[in-house]
Amino acid sequence: MQKNLFTSMPFSLKEEQFEELAGGKDVSIERIVSRGHSSPEEGWYDQPQHEWVVVLQGRAVLAFEQGEDVELAPGDHLTIPSHCRHRVKWTDPQQATVWLAVHYS
Amino acid sequence: MQKNLFTSMPFSLKEEQFEELAGGKDVSIERIVSRGHSSPEEGWYDQPQHEWVVVLQGRAVLAFEQGEDVELAPGDHLTIPSHCRHRVKWTDPQQATVWLAVHYS
Repeated sequence: MQKNLFTSMPFSLKEEQFEELAGGKDVSIERIVSRGHSSPEEGWYDQPQHEWVVVLQGRAVLAFEQGEDVELAPGDHLTIPSHCRHRVKWTDPQQATVWLAVHYS
Repeated sequence: MQKNLFTSMPFSLKEEQFEELAGGKDVSIERIVSRGHSSPEEGWYDQPQHEWVVVLQGRAVLAFEQGEDVELAPGDHLTIPSHCRHRVKWTDPQQATVWLAVHYS
């Protein structure tokens, strides 16, 4: 019945891996696995929904078009308001970084 | 800007601690910290919304009115449909159990 966030991890990752875990009318819960990935230099995410995100394993840096970079270690979480332009600047190349993201209105 | 799920942990816990981390129109994201707590014997949760839940630290057992007990270790997650009656049967008394729960429609 239960599944585990830290199993069925891809061994090699050409691209970041997104997997929807659960979701409803206006909400989507997804696991993201990165390994050294970042968004393209000008690849700002500009999302219609709010996003609450937490790093559960690994390390990452988020950049915001307006604002300072935010370093994320395991347990660190923050809310990115809708249309707040951001990108993944860095993820640890030495280990898988496991994120949990909740998109909601 | 970011906060951490594993800090600001209550040292002693008379009751389970619920803290809303983020939320929107029909969604609520909360951290729950338990330490040896369980629901009252006949204290079934019967919730109008769906709940996606993950254990991030510690150990727990969920019981379902109809169905088998589910043991949860770090990373284990499951979705509890709305009105699926369940209770927390056991949480580890030796350490804080940190849950993340997303309630949604």
